[in-house]
Amino acid sequence: MTSNEVLVSRLRECLGDDHVIVERELQRPYECDALPLYRELPLAVALPGSDTEVQQVLRLCHTLNIPVVARGAGTGLCGGAMPHPEGVLLVLSRLDGIIDIDPLARTARVQPGVANLSISEAAAPHGLYYAPDPSSQIACTIGGNVAENSGGVHCLKYGLTVNNILSLTLYTSEGEKLVVGGAGLDSPALDLMALMTGSEGLLGIVTEITVQLLPSPEIAKVVMAGFDSITEAGDAVSAVISAGIIPAGLEMMDRLAVSAAEDFSQAGYPREAAAILLCEVDGTAEEVDQHISQVADLFRQQGAASVVISVDETHRQLLWRGRKSAFPAVGRLAPDYYCMDGTIPRHQLSHVLTEIHRLGEQYGLGVANVFHAGDGNLHPLILFDASKPEQVSNAKHFGESILTLSVKVGGCISGEHGVGIEKLGMMSEQFSQEELNLLEDIKHAFDPGLRLNPGKGVPILKRCQEYRALPRQHTHD
Amino acid sequence: MTSNEVLVSRLRECLGDDHVIVERELQRPYECDALPLYRELPLAVALPGSDTEVQQVLRLCHTLNIPVVARGAGTGLCGGAMPHPEGVLLVLSRLDGIIDIDPLARTARVQPGVANLSISEAAAPHGLYYAPDPSSQIACTIGGNVAENSGGVHCLKYGLTVNNILSLTLYTSEGEKLVVGGAGLDSPALDLMALMTGSEGLLGIVTEITVQLLPSPEIAKVVMAGFDSITEAGDAVSAVISAGIIPAGLEMMDRLAVSAAEDFSQAGYPREAAAILLCEVDGTAEEVDQHISQVADLFRQQGAASVVISVDETHRQLLWRGRKSAFPAVGRLAPDYYCMDGTIPRHQLSHVLTEIHRLGEQYGLGVANVFHAGDGNLHPLILFDASKPEQVSNAKHFGESILTLSVKVGGCISGEHGVGIEKLGMMSEQFSQEELNLLEDIKHAFDPGLRLNPGKGVPILKRCQEYRALPRQHTHD
Repeated sequence: MTSNEVLVSRLRECLGDDHVIVERELQRPYECDALPLYRELPLAVALPGSDTEVQQVLRLCHTLNIPVVARGAGTGLCGGAMPHPEGVLLVLSRLDGIIDIDPLARTARVQPGVANLSISEAAAPHGLYYAPDPSSQIACTIGGNVAENSGGVHCLKYGLTVNNILSLTLYTSEGEKLVVGGAGLDSPALDLMALMTGSEGLLGIVTEITVQLLPSPEIAKVVMAGFDSITEAGDAVSAVISAGIIPAGLEMMDRLAVSAAEDFSQAGYPREAAAILLCEVDGTAEEVDQHISQVADLFRQQGAASVVISVDETHRQLLWRGRKSAFPAVGRLAPDYYCMDGTIPRHQLSHVLTEIHRLGEQYGLGVANVFHAGDGNLHPLILFDASKPEQVSNAKHFGESILTLSVKVGGCISGEHGVGIEKLGMMSEQFSQEELNLLEDIKHAFDPGLRLNPGKGVPILKRCQEYRALPRQHTHD
Repeated sequence: MTSNEVLVSRLRECLGDDHVIVERELQRPYECDALPLYRELPLAVALPGSDTEVQQVLRLCHTLNIPVVARGAGTGLCGGAMPHPEGVLLVLSRLDGIIDIDPLARTARVQPGVANLSISEAAAPHGLYYAPDPSSQIACTIGGNVAENSGGVHCLKYGLTVNNILSLTLYTSEGEKLVVGGAGLDSPALDLMALMTGSEGLLGIVTEITVQLLPSPEIAKVVMAGFDSITEAGDAVSAVISAGIIPAGLEMMDRLAVSAAEDFSQAGYPREAAAILLCEVDGTAEEVDQHISQVADLFRQQGAASVVISVDETHRQLLWRGRKSAFPAVGRLAPDYYCMDGTIPRHQLSHVLTEIHRLGEQYGLGVANVFHAGDGNLHPLILFDASKPEQVSNAKHFGESILTLSVKVGGCISGEHGVGIEKLGMMSEQFSQEELNLLEDIKHAFDPGLRLNPGKGVPILKRCQEYRALPRQHTHD
């Protein structure tokens, strides 16, 4: 048998024939995540059904020196789950159980393949929910959220994934089981749970997550305001933050995004506005009324041309529907779009948005902007046609220019979507050589064979020489 | 010159004669932190006055292969800042500047030697404050808070240090500068900022911290309730949490702690109670009134013998005064006390408290209990006389028994005080061999010479043999 045949045969022994996919056509659904600019097919797709099977696959790949790439629902936006052509794609979708919910401790123990929204649905009978809410929350898995440290519209108030989980069970590349974090707020020694969160499948494979649940807020309301200029909208964001209000969410959309979202969802957005803001406040009824009217007043003082406050829950959901469908809505404006993800200091909002529009003209590509304005996280959506190689190249360069700009104004290359394969080359814009060396050393401490998600997340430089000589090494592409 | 003379002479060149202390009597104030069970004197105490001087001292110690132990205000409770007898004690108290406050970004850039409370005082004119509030906040430094990932009474709602900082500038043991974290909510790649936070001086020396500031709450009120049994008080804690209220703080004190605190501070606590609870709610006036009356009702339903709600800010401060002075108050009950720090699942509260009292009888020592009940973090204060060797030994064993019990019921050996030298031997109770190996590997990635705070925090086992052979190595005592 060839070494590949050995791999497949051993995988089938572990997982059963039905849970190992080697046929190229059946592998197609797994060739990319939600960033289809990068595609590969793996040697094999493996779908383990238990912790033990995950461990067996990892041990097998360790023995055979095969790379392993983990995948949840494939909704990631940085190519982090793109398969390795000489590796196993470890798909965790069958590990989709909610193990238990403890309403007193306000925690849920879940498997990585559970969809984000399913956790809140399961917790709802106890008056609890799981706070981080990526746009893809119907589909994206909690395991993927941990891998990317996902945020969402409400992370301004409730934090990212790392702020909403308590412990992780994981297996190292050699198949060793580790438990990091604990039931308490803090745990002794180095914070390995935080280190694992956002580590993009480079350090270990998570098989169980204990998440924190929050009491569902009594009520939430949203204010929507249209502004005649980006600068006014940016200043209005600053005014809310300066007033000492912590909104549950504070989002901005520019004209093109508003127009696309309105076509798609009829949310009632003002198409004539240069930008709109959506500001949500949640809490007790009295607190929400007080803050909502304060926000509406601030928006008017900052020159809002229109201000709408949600009158009931249905209306609130409608006002959000446009924002939540902005990505697919913008997707109808061109054959393809490329979603960027950088952060910038809040006071740079209008400067950066102006620059992005200028860059769009330079590269000859349209761009729609959706911002988590409250925390300075931008999501420019670059419009292009993937069937035209020049546009693909221009879209990539346009994206890199936006990230370089983000770093230049004091921000960073990834707010919540991760580095993956997409931004590997940008890591040296963000980090010094000493910092990159340290990241590589930590990667090495967890995964000395450098077999977990090689070629993603952290550039591997120091060990290139050493590993290049070895057979079957895939540490850099 | 001897190698020690070389060290001292070079330190004096870097820092000036006034900022290098070698006289044994002048070193006495630095021989321990707030856990005086462990004492040592260093070769030299170094007091750098700038980032550059910190870097110079680290480079010097790297060249000469000398251990370095960092110290803030010395209020730590795990012996983490105890000097190394053959090393330099790097005291960061002169780096006490607030570099700037940005009210719009709600951040402050500060040096490590700034006292925790000073940050809130400086932010107050902007209506902002820094949330984590350890009992020692008048004295303890933000650098020490980062080293221990400190919490405080309000961490139930506002999180630990790691949840309230954005970025760190640090120097490695070789004097390389790193910047970890960033202005945004998240930063790309592995979360080195979270890894550094709570790393107890083992990974690097922090010279600048960007902290997040929060808007000062409009109002805060507190409910104090006395219960006739520990079990009732424990159930009342559960009732509050189950009702979906997130108090700003939820504290429990047992009879001995109440009695000592009342003698000390005349806060108006009911001496006849088996335990009291203090529950604070903050926010807008309406929200606070709603939640406070709900908490008071729940306490009554759970059998509270007395319930008092703060009538104004002075009264609120008075009710807290007893809790905040509990440690010094208990300190008057015996020549010495030993403060433990473990976490347990909330539902184990009454079981664990009963066991602690039983262990107290077994070891023949008194014990007063102060709990961060809301998050299951216990602080038993063991009373003993340090002049009696048998009592010292019994106090240590009693403490270990409490931590072993905490792990047994599903908790951990340190809630917020750290591992230091105190709990180094307990790390193997908490972690598997694989987990300890990984901690050691990460330590090695940052500090390959194992010179930063050796003998503390993380047991160094794998590399013992290798390093034992080298001259002047102090990696384990």
